[in-house]
Amino acid sequence: MIPERIKYKKGTLSILDQREIPYKIKYFEAKNVRDVHRAIKEMMVRGAPLIGDAAAFGYLLGLDCIIKSKIYNKEYIKKNLKRNFEIIKTSRPTAVSLFKAVERTHFAAMKFLEKTGKVISKNELFSLREVVEKEAFKILNEDIESTIKIAENGINILKKNSIIITYCNTGSLATAGIGTALGIITEGYKNGFVKFVFPCETRPYLQGARLTAWELLVNKIPFALICDNMAGWIMKTKKPDAIIIGADRIAANGDTANKIGSYSLAILAKEHKIPFFVAAPTDTFDLTIKNGDDIKIEERGKEEVIKIKGNYIAHPKVSAVHPAFDVVPGKFISAIITEKGIIRNPDFKKIKKFLKQRNSK
Amino acid sequence: MIPERIKYKKGTLSILDQREIPYKIKYFEAKNVRDVHRAIKEMMVRGAPLIGDAAAFGYLLGLDCIIKSKIYNKEYIKKNLKRNFEIIKTSRPTAVSLFKAVERTHFAAMKFLEKTGKVISKNELFSLREVVEKEAFKILNEDIESTIKIAENGINILKKNSIIITYCNTGSLATAGIGTALGIITEGYKNGFVKFVFPCETRPYLQGARLTAWELLVNKIPFALICDNMAGWIMKTKKPDAIIIGADRIAANGDTANKIGSYSLAILAKEHKIPFFVAAPTDTFDLTIKNGDDIKIEERGKEEVIKIKGNYIAHPKVSAVHPAFDVVPGKFISAIITEKGIIRNPDFKKIKKFLKQRNSK
Repeated sequence: MIPERIKYKKGTLSILDQREIPYKIKYFEAKNVRDVHRAIKEMMVRGAPLIGDAAAFGYLLGLDCIIKSKIYNKEYIKKNLKRNFEIIKTSRPTAVSLFKAVERTHFAAMKFLEKTGKVISKNELFSLREVVEKEAFKILNEDIESTIKIAENGINILKKNSIIITYCNTGSLATAGIGTALGIITEGYKNGFVKFVFPCETRPYLQGARLTAWELLVNKIPFALICDNMAGWIMKTKKPDAIIIGADRIAANGDTANKIGSYSLAILAKEHKIPFFVAAPTDTFDLTIKNGDDIKIEERGKEEVIKIKGNYIAHPKVSAVHPAFDVVPGKFISAIITEKGIIRNPDFKKIKKFLKQRNSK
Repeated sequence: MIPERIKYKKGTLSILDQREIPYKIKYFEAKNVRDVHRAIKEMMVRGAPLIGDAAAFGYLLGLDCIIKSKIYNKEYIKKNLKRNFEIIKTSRPTAVSLFKAVERTHFAAMKFLEKTGKVISKNELFSLREVVEKEAFKILNEDIESTIKIAENGINILKKNSIIITYCNTGSLATAGIGTALGIITEGYKNGFVKFVFPCETRPYLQGARLTAWELLVNKIPFALICDNMAGWIMKTKKPDAIIIGADRIAANGDTANKIGSYSLAILAKEHKIPFFVAAPTDTFDLTIKNGDDIKIEERGKEEVIKIKGNYIAHPKVSAVHPAFDVVPGKFISAIITEKGIIRNPDFKKIKKFLKQRNSK
């Protein structure tokens, strides 16, 4: 069994420290907004949907701290909630679900405060807390349900007994549910649609080697870990039936920001004529962004490239670059698999139509 | 300064243990054929040309051991030389220069023995030793000269101030000289043809991170190390002018076996319309092999993938595959740069013509 990723209980968010997986099961006890910001920034918690969940509960922790200060001035409370909202938003520039989740809790709080006077009663403050807590749990539960529906939809697109290449970690460890791309694989295996998986190790953080390979092991799914640079050769020699990856943000035209290396993988899939699927909940779409050129790519430090588990793998004076994400052009994507259905050969028009239809339901 | 890679002195071949670079300068003292076989197999010595040099001296060490046994029977000596020849050949299936080098020393020995009687005198044995030693040093010196000529030829194919992506290690550490692909880069930098280098880290052995980045650092060439999975994104965003890699074996049609990941890199270069160059001495051609399908790919153990410097980077029970090489189709190669000149858009006919012309000179 994969341990619980986040657990909220009375003013504490216990966050599974995924940097220690699979070596150790260790939780980081987040007590406030700064703790959650740090947990996201330092990659203790990761995976776009799970980051969204953590962000929502981070906002709740922030509210808990405000309540403890026993100041009942509405402007003070609003100012602090706004500040918390901004802090959480900066923890990971690429993940749109983070923005959307913390926006939801923040908007719920602001909406509640519209109805109150300049000084807020203790009871009102507790009601505000209830509203935010309810929204956070709603976000968490929607994440769980989404993953189940993504898996159901994703299975339909696969051939029986498929060999799959996947990237980074998009499983239980990336969501509160069964995962996005890896959820499809896990459910696909149970139902005869997947027979073998090649997870890519996903340098520099090795989410594939540490997390995905471990999930596959725990779930007893036949697999062989590969280094990222083997993907092309595996496509040529093992003839996989599909590549499935997750997404951090999808622009209006289908351009998809995801873990660095996704772009190369998509080009290799195109060359080998292998279907390339993106699996993500619909809140990964960011229609305010026209195309991938407008997605801000997080640049992280060189130490993450030249050190593994604290040990240098290159001379310490070596310089390195570390774009943490890249963008797969929508035209290279065979289909985007969401909880609301599948968008084949996604482009601006199809995505707009799909979201309009589905959101009106 | 890059330390000497191999040093032969009185029955000992000191081999720089490249697994320890850049952390430690440590030499392995090879005394016999088995030692050299082990040094190649365990990747203490690597780089196709340097392996060839080590193999030639390995054969010489084997002869030294035979001489020490003080048995003068020609059949016994021939049998043992043949056995040594076979042992060395099996140490690295992909590197053709290894075969060719040890074949040269073996043929020189066999040719000498043709002229002797059934029992060999002590003096003849010493002459035999001289013949083999001379051939080994000839191979070493040819390697050094080759690298200088490859660099001269390679510079001509580059634009001024090029940004270059390179792969694995093809520098001083891969040859007895200045290197093949990296030799072009080093000389290119000195002459204004190269301004910046992106070496790929080259998993699982990290020859790029450990060795190439170190050589670039020592030679004060501006560079930034990248993870292998970043290559596509770097091609898109940094617009490099050329990719240059080395080669372990080149088939008659130009299909080139090289370190795993070379194949992916070539496809990415094609997609981005970036020239893709292979730099290698002409003894890397194996005309007995029609095309890449016939090149045997060495499969190495999973431990090399899931462990780095003795530490697990995945759960120890994780399964992994490790093809150590792959094959770049000749049609993806813009030019092969050799010590004898350049073959543009290599194919069967051009390679045949080039080698025929150049070898007759």
